Amino acid sequence: MSAPRAAERGRGLESEPGSCSTQTSHRLLAYSDALLSIIATVMILPVAHTKIHPDQKLGESVQQLLLAKIAVYLMTFLIVTVAWAAHVRLFQVIELIDDVLALLNLACMMIITFLPYTFSLMASFPEVPFGIFLFSVCAVVIGLIQAVIVAYGFYHPHLLNQQIQESENQNFYKRHILKIILRGPVLCFLAAIFSFFFIPLSYVLLGLVIIFPHLTRFIKWCKSKIVGQSDEEEEHHSLETFTFYLSEPLSKERVEAFSDGVYAIVATLLILDICEDNVPDPREVEEKFHGSLLEALSEYGPNYLAYFGSFVTIGLLWFVHHSLFLYVTKATRLMGLLNILSLAFIGGLPLAYQLTSEFAEKSHNEIEAIQVSCVITFFASIFQFAIWTTALLNERETLHPFARYGGKEHAFMFAKLALYPCVSLGTFFLTCLLSEFSTAIFHLMQIVIPFAFLALRIFVRISLTVVKTMMSLSRRKVVLLEEEEACLSPTETLS
Amino acid sequence: MSAPRAAERGRGLESEPGSCSTQTSHRLLAYSDALLSIIATVMILPVAHTKIHPDQKLGESVQQLLLAKIAVYLMTFLIVTVAWAAHVRLFQVIELIDDVLALLNLACMMIITFLPYTFSLMASFPEVPFGIFLFSVCAVVIGLIQAVIVAYGFYHPHLLNQQIQESENQNFYKRHILKIILRGPVLCFLAAIFSFFFIPLSYVLLGLVIIFPHLTRFIKWCKSKIVGQSDEEEEHHSLETFTFYLSEPLSKERVEAFSDGVYAIVATLLILDICEDNVPDPREVEEKFHGSLLEALSEYGPNYLAYFGSFVTIGLLWFVHHSLFLYVTKATRLMGLLNILSLAFIGGLPLAYQLTSEFAEKSHNEIEAIQVSCVITFFASIFQFAIWTTALLNERETLHPFARYGGKEHAFMFAKLALYPCVSLGTFFLTCLLSEFSTAIFHLMQIVIPFAFLALRIFVRISLTVVKTMMSLSRRKVVLLEEEEACLSPTETLS
Repeated sequence: MSAPRAAERGRGLESEPGSCSTQTSHRLLAYSDALLSIIATVMILPVAHTKIHPDQKLGESVQQLLLAKIAVYLMTFLIVTVAWAAHVRLFQVIELIDDVLALLNLACMMIITFLPYTFSLMASFPEVPFGIFLFSVCAVVIGLIQAVIVAYGFYHPHLLNQQIQESENQNFYKRHILKIILRGPVLCFLAAIFSFFFIPLSYVLLGLVIIFPHLTRFIKWCKSKIVGQSDEEEEHHSLETFTFYLSEPLSKERVEAFSDGVYAIVATLLILDICEDNVPDPREVEEKFHGSLLEALSEYGPNYLAYFGSFVTIGLLWFVHHSLFLYVTKATRLMGLLNILSLAFIGGLPLAYQLTSEFAEKSHNEIEAIQVSCVITFFASIFQFAIWTTALLNERETLHPFARYGGKEHAFMFAKLALYPCVSLGTFFLTCLLSEFSTAIFHLMQIVIPFAFLALRIFVRISLTVVKTMMSLSRRKVVLLEEEEACLSPTETLS
Repeated sequence: MSAPRAAERGRGLESEPGSCSTQTSHRLLAYSDALLSIIATVMILPVAHTKIHPDQKLGESVQQLLLAKIAVYLMTFLIVTVAWAAHVRLFQVIELIDDVLALLNLACMMIITFLPYTFSLMASFPEVPFGIFLFSVCAVVIGLIQAVIVAYGFYHPHLLNQQIQESENQNFYKRHILKIILRGPVLCFLAAIFSFFFIPLSYVLLGLVIIFPHLTRFIKWCKSKIVGQSDEEEEHHSLETFTFYLSEPLSKERVEAFSDGVYAIVATLLILDICEDNVPDPREVEEKFHGSLLEALSEYGPNYLAYFGSFVTIGLLWFVHHSLFLYVTKATRLMGLLNILSLAFIGGLPLAYQLTSEFAEKSHNEIEAIQVSCVITFFASIFQFAIWTTALLNERETLHPFARYGGKEHAFMFAKLALYPCVSLGTFFLTCLLSEFSTAIFHLMQIVIPFAFLALRIFVRISLTVVKTMMSLSRRKVVLLEEEEACLSPTETLS
C-alpha cells in the first residue's frame, strides 16, 4: 500500500485524494493556525475594556483587576503557543490526514479554545481549586486526543512523514513524539491532583508546563557548553537524519501563518471598539449638539487618530515581520521563542490604543498612556530585531544570502528592523523631557513613520555612500578592503 | 530584464528575492484575506450583544435596534466581499510585489477596516447624509489606492502576470482591470454627491455597488441564453487566453483562505462572550452560594452546552467545506457567490449561540431561539450544498473525477453535504410539533451530529449495498447496468 502511494504524493497545495479519504493537511493546518492565533490574542479584549476613570489615579482595586486580566492574557497566550508548538510537531510527523484525523483535530481545537475561560476563573478565584482543576482536565483531554491522533497515525502508516514511514525505527519515533506531546498533560495531571491539597504547587507545575520546553533546551545547551558536545546525543543525531525534524519543531510556513493570524486579529479588534463606543446616541446629538452629527463626531477626533495610529503601527510591524521572514530560510527554536514574545507584545497594542484614545479627556494619565504605548511598541519591535540577530549568529543555515553580512539587502534590513525600536525609544525619552508636548510628539511620530518606511531605501543608500566616502577619505591606503567594509559599517553608524 | 527573471520565478511559497525588492505576493495575500474575513464577520458581535430581556416579547424599539444592527452586519459583510473580489482580481494581474506595493496594500486595508464604522453611523442616523458621505469617500479612496497599485504595476512590468507581461495588448488589460476596480468607486462618488440632495438615491447607488458585478454577469448570461452565444465575446475569448483570468476572478486558494478566516473568527468569538459574561462575581458567590464556586458555575450549564454546541456546528460546517473544496478544482463566480452567502449565515451563528444560551432563564422565547438557530444552520449548510450542485452542472471543469457522477466519492460527498440541511430542517419541524421537548431535541441533535459524521462512511456503504441488493432483486435482468446505477441511486434514497 505504501510504496506507490508514497511516490505519487508531494507537499503541494493541491489535494491528492490518492486513497478515498487521504488528504494533504495544508488547509487543516492553516485553519488550526488561524484558530490558535485568534484564541491566543483575543483575551487582550477584557484587559483593554477595563474602564479606568480619568480623574482617578489608578486605584488599588482597579490595578488588581487589571493585573488579573493581564495575567489571564499572558497565561492564555503562552499556553496556547505551547499547544501550537506541540501541534506543529505532531503534524510534522503526520503529513497526510483523513476524515477521522480532521474531526479529532477539531475536537482538540474546541478544548483549546475553552482554555481562556479556565484562566478567567483562576484569575477571579485564585484560592479556589476548581479553576486550576478545570484547566488541568482540559490539558489532559487535549493530550489524550493528540495521543489518539498519534496512535491512529502510526496504525495507518501511509499517513506518516515519508522518512518515518520508510524507517525501521518507527517505534522509537512513536515514543519520542508521544513523550513530547504528553509531557505537558502529565504535569497538568499532577497539578490537578495537588490543586485539592496545596494550590501553590499546582501553579508552579502550571508555570513549568509553559517553560518546560525552553528549560530542557536551555539545560541541554548549558551542558553542551560546559561538558562539550554530549556524545550520546550526537550518535542519535547521526543515526537517522529525521531526528532533525524532532529537534527543530518550527516550520517557517506555520510560524508565518500563526503570526499573520495574530497581526490580523489585533488590527481588526480596534474597529470593534470604535463601532461600539464611538457612535453617538441619536437623542444626545439632538439635545447637546442641536442635531449636528458632524459636531458630535468631532468630539471623537482623538479616537480616530488613535485608531489609525494603532492600525499603522500594527500594519508596519507586520510589514517588518514580512520583510524579515522573506529572507529567513529556516526558523530555529530560539527564533520561534523570540517571535512569540514579540507577538505577545503585539497583542498588547489594543490596550495601548484604548489608553491613547482617551486623550480627549485631558487626564493626567496622558503621559503614562503614551509611555505605555511606546514601551509596548518598543518591546514588540526589539524582539523582531532579536530574531534577526539570532538568525545572523547562524546565518548560513537560517538566512538567504542577500540578508547575510555583506549581502546586498543587509544594511536595508537592518534599517527596517531598527526603525521602530529607535523611534519608540526616542519618543519615550522625548515625552519625559518635554512632557507638555507629549501628545504632539506622539502623533508626529505616528504620521512620520510610514513615510520613513517609504523613503527608507533612499536613506540607506545615502548613508551608505556617505560612510563609503568618509572611509575612503580617512584611510586611502586600504583601498582593497573598502568594498567589504562598506557593507558592514552601516550597522555601526546607524545604531 | 524580463526574460531571465520571468523564467526563474514560479508560483511557489518560497520567496525569490530576484531583484532586490521583488517578492512573491503569497503572504501578503494571506494576510489580506485574514484581515478581510475578520472585518466581514466581526460586526455580528454588536448584533449578538443586543440584550433582549427574557420576559419582554421582542418590543418594537428592540426589534428596530436589532434590525439596524443586522443591516450593518449584512452591509459590511457584502461590501467587504465585493472589496475582496476586487482585491483577488487585482493581485491576479500583479503577481509579484515590492515594498511600495506592500505598503499601498496596507493603506488600502486600513481604509477597508474603517468601513464598518461608516455603516454603524448610517444605521444610527439613516436620515443624516454624513454617514453615507463618509462611506463613499472611503470607497473612493480605496479605489484610488488600487488604481495607483495598478499604475505602479504596469509601470514596473516585471511585477505583472507573465501572460500580460508578454502580451502586446498591455494597455487593453490595464484599461480592463482599471474598469473593474473603479466601477464601485465611481458609483460611490455619485452617491456622495447625491447624499446632500436626495439620500434615497444614494442608498440605491450603494446597493448597486454590491450587486453590480452579479447583475452584469446575470444580464450577460440572460442575453447569451436568449440571443445565443454572443459572437463578439467569443472572439475576445479566443483572442488571448488570458481573458480567462479576468472573467473568472476567484482563485481557489483565496476562496479557501477567506472562508477559513470567517470560520475561525466565528468559532473564537464565542469564547470571548463566555469569558466576559460567565465568570461569576466573587462577592455574589460568597453571598448567594456560600462560597461554593461549583454551585455558582452550575447556573451557567446551558451556556457551556450552547458554547460547545456552536463550536461543534461551526467546526463541522468547516469540515464539510473543507471536504467539498478538496474535490473542487476550480471555483467559478457563481460558486463564489454561493460560498459568500453561506459564510454570511455562518457569521450569524454567534447570534444563534447568544439566543440558545439563554435557555437557563426558561423564557418563552426558547422555541423561537431554537428555530432561529435551525434556520441559520439550515441556510449556511444549504448554500454549501448549492455550491456542490453548481459544481456538478459543470463537473468536467470544476470537480475532481472522484466527486463527479459515478465517482467513488460521489455518494459520500452527497451524504456529507446533505446531513446538516436535513438535520436542521428536521429539528425545526420537530420543535414545531413537540414544542415541550424542544430543548431536549435540540441538544440531542447537537450531540448526535459529530458521531453521525464519524460513522457516515459506514452508513453510506450500508445504504449503497442495500440499494444494490434491492435493485438486483427487483430487476434481475438488467445485471449489466447495475454497477453504474448503484453509484447514482443513493442520492435519491438519502434525500
